[in-house]
Amino acid sequence: MQLLNGSKVADKILNDVKNQVENLKKRGKEACLGIILVGNRKDSNSYVKMKKKRCQEVGIISCDIQLPEEVTEKELLENVERLNQDPCVHGILVQLPLPPHVSTERVISKISVKKDVDGFHPVNFGNLSLQRETEKTIFPCTPEGIIYLLDSYQIPIEGKDVVIIGKSNIVGLPMALMMMHNGATVTVCHSLTKDLKQKTSRGDILIVACGQPEMITSEYVKEGAVVIDVGINSVEDKTKKSGYRIVGDVNFKFVQEKCSYLTPVPGGVGPMTIAMLLLHTVKLASLS
Amino acid sequence: MQLLNGSKVADKILNDVKNQVENLKKRGKEACLGIILVGNRKDSNSYVKMKKKRCQEVGIISCDIQLPEEVTEKELLENVERLNQDPCVHGILVQLPLPPHVSTERVISKISVKKDVDGFHPVNFGNLSLQRETEKTIFPCTPEGIIYLLDSYQIPIEGKDVVIIGKSNIVGLPMALMMMHNGATVTVCHSLTKDLKQKTSRGDILIVACGQPEMITSEYVKEGAVVIDVGINSVEDKTKKSGYRIVGDVNFKFVQEKCSYLTPVPGGVGPMTIAMLLLHTVKLASLS
Repeated sequence: MQLLNGSKVADKILNDVKNQVENLKKRGKEACLGIILVGNRKDSNSYVKMKKKRCQEVGIISCDIQLPEEVTEKELLENVERLNQDPCVHGILVQLPLPPHVSTERVISKISVKKDVDGFHPVNFGNLSLQRETEKTIFPCTPEGIIYLLDSYQIPIEGKDVVIIGKSNIVGLPMALMMMHNGATVTVCHSLTKDLKQKTSRGDILIVACGQPEMITSEYVKEGAVVIDVGINSVEDKTKKSGYRIVGDVNFKFVQEKCSYLTPVPGGVGPMTIAMLLLHTVKLASLS
Repeated sequence: MQLLNGSKVADKILNDVKNQVENLKKRGKEACLGIILVGNRKDSNSYVKMKKKRCQEVGIISCDIQLPEEVTEKELLENVERLNQDPCVHGILVQLPLPPHVSTERVISKISVKKDVDGFHPVNFGNLSLQRETEKTIFPCTPEGIIYLLDSYQIPIEGKDVVIIGKSNIVGLPMALMMMHNGATVTVCHSLTKDLKQKTSRGDILIVACGQPEMITSEYVKEGAVVIDVGINSVEDKTKKSGYRIVGDVNFKFVQEKCSYLTPVPGGVGPMTIAMLLLHTVKLASLS
């Protein structure tokens, strides 16, 4: 089994982003990512912290708005609109999940397509579905990062059987579309899928985004498969100083014996997602 | 095996459309579908003829622009724009396929989202992908008609294994999205798929849109499956006065023995597609 080292591939991309940011600066433009963070979730806080850290490393300005858990949808929408109107901000990221009393759909839809750094705007999503990539199109970060990672290791997609667990708008669904467009035969599984093990163990490439810590054991995996673990879960671990450790949706220990390639957690899909985010920010800045 | 009688279900819908058209007339609005037909393909001619006939039956005005095979892309785009600007036209249909010297994508993208009766505009497609159905959203006619037909026969979709052959933007891809949104486990097969028979014969519901006359024989079909035949092919038949007959992508004779439900060709998916088209026209007229 060979590890798919997302951190290493992401570093190369970030280096490229850094150069692009410097070139923009020479033209008098400072790439800036606006981040909206609602509430005080531990996971969201740490994701945002990581994104800001990476921004700083490549010279992208990050400007973050922190709003209380109790923020009204109206206030949240006003803050999105404020960033829409701000000519210094080139990309807008609303950290998900949002508290249940606000409509994620309405908030995400409010982000201008010109600043849709996450690729969730219906126009971007429509162009992704219809395979109409223009220089302006932004694809969702996580699935785009996964395709990039596979390409980096020259793992072919065309003609392969790809099984995806999870059909969210953020990962599973756009991943399915991209894999189809790359010539794979795609099966999308989810909570209503019957005989899940049987289906997943047919995948030459298995992409796991089910949000269940270490759920995928070797019985779910085809011998020699490429396994991509999108999960990031914190589980209790009293041996750690923090009291917890981060695990994926795949049981690394069991699955590593059976597959040909595997992404570690952390250090696999996560860094690729952030690299795509920063690549998009600098793209939107250069288009603005 | 029970036939899924698309003609019968479509008739009920057309009756409803007729009432809606009459109600619009009372409010002084005459629903109108603009049709652009390029060249002189036999199949396109007969589809357009059928669509116009149905329009007439329900009281929708159809206005068609016939352009020669040699029309330039510029002229074609100007004609789309003319219909975009015409306040009397509520829906615009460009009959596909277009000749190879024009870009289908550019022509289709030119149609105003407000008149996108076929549901191919990126905004409509994005909303379909993201499962954001608003009162304005238009879904592609053929897959929407198929869902409608299954619902009419109370055939459940949730939790079922659905296999789709074909991944076009018109049928396969939007069908996959709709089936996923309805809770099915979806596999999309196409020309690069390996072991096709093995995959299709796992489908509780098999949707065939491969454009190969009578390709799907009983070996491709699971015992007791629901089989939806989207194909419309004309094959030579010297016993017919016309010299040809219409067949689907499914070999009806062999498959009917094995499946639980089957759509005939003609009289299955075709009439449902047209019914959805007219339903969309009257919807866009009432929204205008």
